[in-house]
Amino acid sequence: MTDAPSRNIISRRNRPAKSPLSRDVIVSAALHILEREGLSGLTLRRIATALDTGPASLYVYVTNLDELHTLMLDRALEAVHLPRSPKLTWRDRLKTLLRSYLNILYQRPGLAQIALSTIAAGPSSLRILEMILSLLQEGGVDDLKAAWGVDLLILYVTAIAAEQSQRHEGDQSLERVKKALSTASKDQFPRIFALKDALLAGDGGSRSDWALDVIIEGIAHGGFDPLTTATAGVRKRQGSGRNR
Amino acid sequence: MTDAPSRNIISRRNRPAKSPLSRDVIVSAALHILEREGLSGLTLRRIATALDTGPASLYVYVTNLDELHTLMLDRALEAVHLPRSPKLTWRDRLKTLLRSYLNILYQRPGLAQIALSTIAAGPSSLRILEMILSLLQEGGVDDLKAAWGVDLLILYVTAIAAEQSQRHEGDQSLERVKKALSTASKDQFPRIFALKDALLAGDGGSRSDWALDVIIEGIAHGGFDPLTTATAGVRKRQGSGRNR
Repeated sequence: MTDAPSRNIISRRNRPAKSPLSRDVIVSAALHILEREGLSGLTLRRIATALDTGPASLYVYVTNLDELHTLMLDRALEAVHLPRSPKLTWRDRLKTLLRSYLNILYQRPGLAQIALSTIAAGPSSLRILEMILSLLQEGGVDDLKAAWGVDLLILYVTAIAAEQSQRHEGDQSLERVKKALSTASKDQFPRIFALKDALLAGDGGSRSDWALDVIIEGIAHGGFDPLTTATAGVRKRQGSGRNR
Repeated sequence: MTDAPSRNIISRRNRPAKSPLSRDVIVSAALHILEREGLSGLTLRRIATALDTGPASLYVYVTNLDELHTLMLDRALEAVHLPRSPKLTWRDRLKTLLRSYLNILYQRPGLAQIALSTIAAGPSSLRILEMILSLLQEGGVDDLKAAWGVDLLILYVTAIAAEQSQRHEGDQSLERVKKALSTASKDQFPRIFALKDALLAGDGGSRSDWALDVIIEGIAHGGFDPLTTATAGVRKRQGSGRNR
């Protein structure tokens, strides 16, 4: 019996050790995939592959993709700047916070879309919510208006981020709008004709800055009591509701 | 030479005549597919198949999927109610129009997402834009504020519709939010603790009704001049811009 030819056996011990699974590890991997492959590439199967395991192992830590989205959003929102400088007015601190929120959603393609389809409820979101409520209180805003106002402010920055990140590169729609506005006739569309330049004026930053001022002002000084509106709203609503 | 056995030859003339291609036909087919198969199923290839033709034939009428989205959005917006009753105040007419806009986006899954990623510029959009500008003028709103305000109002209703239609059925996130809020401690999150009930109060219709009042009020009576904000915004902006 001759010796078997020596084979180059690679010990499995030489493979890098897998890091033990945890919610944190899964959320990090998911954010990494989102960044590189976008929302359409983000499946539990894809995350499992990246972590060198099977999808079934992930279910020990996250119930489903919806829950994972919520966790990813909250993790990303850890980076939102919560300004505490007493040199700034409550309004400027609020705007700084919201601009930071917007930038975080905007910089990670797909994240704003996740934010539109889920409600963040983890520790970062609670810290942000607490700070916005405190700032509105500092600004003398009524409790109920503050409570409903948070929702409106967060929805606005989420929408701006989603709009921006979903608008495709090389998209011609702005050009189409310019063309459409410039051909609007004075007879048929007198207001568009008169405001043509204003409709296209300003860059994105100026517009969202102005819009934040408008919304904050409306929340702080609009004469509308949410409860009165609520009653009227129930009477008038046409099935257009948000479920919260 | 015998006669060939009689074969049951079906004349091509008996096939239903294809309707001639046109932009209108393509847009109708695309909206039909969107309604039944959602946004992910909407490709030029799929539309071509539905119209019994090849994708290349579609390019005679639409440049690309982006342009088709714009056309689809404008077609759907034909149904927006433009209220002209002199019995209603300008503000109520504006809110009626916006609620109708919201419902149309909301009722057709995928359409709100299209609306976030494109800018409508066709005849329906121009009619809606003209009416909103007229109503704001009737309300005594400055021209520049009206011009920028339209954008904010439309973005808000689009976002509400997108949020609603993207939130998955059976989604547990509202339950998670309720749980998170109810466990927020008085020490760590005093404002959340104090406003817990208000944060969850009201249904979707009441909240969006209130939010529209807030935004309209902010546009009409907020003391912010877009041009001043614009200058400040350019100085302060952190790359968060919308490109219009």
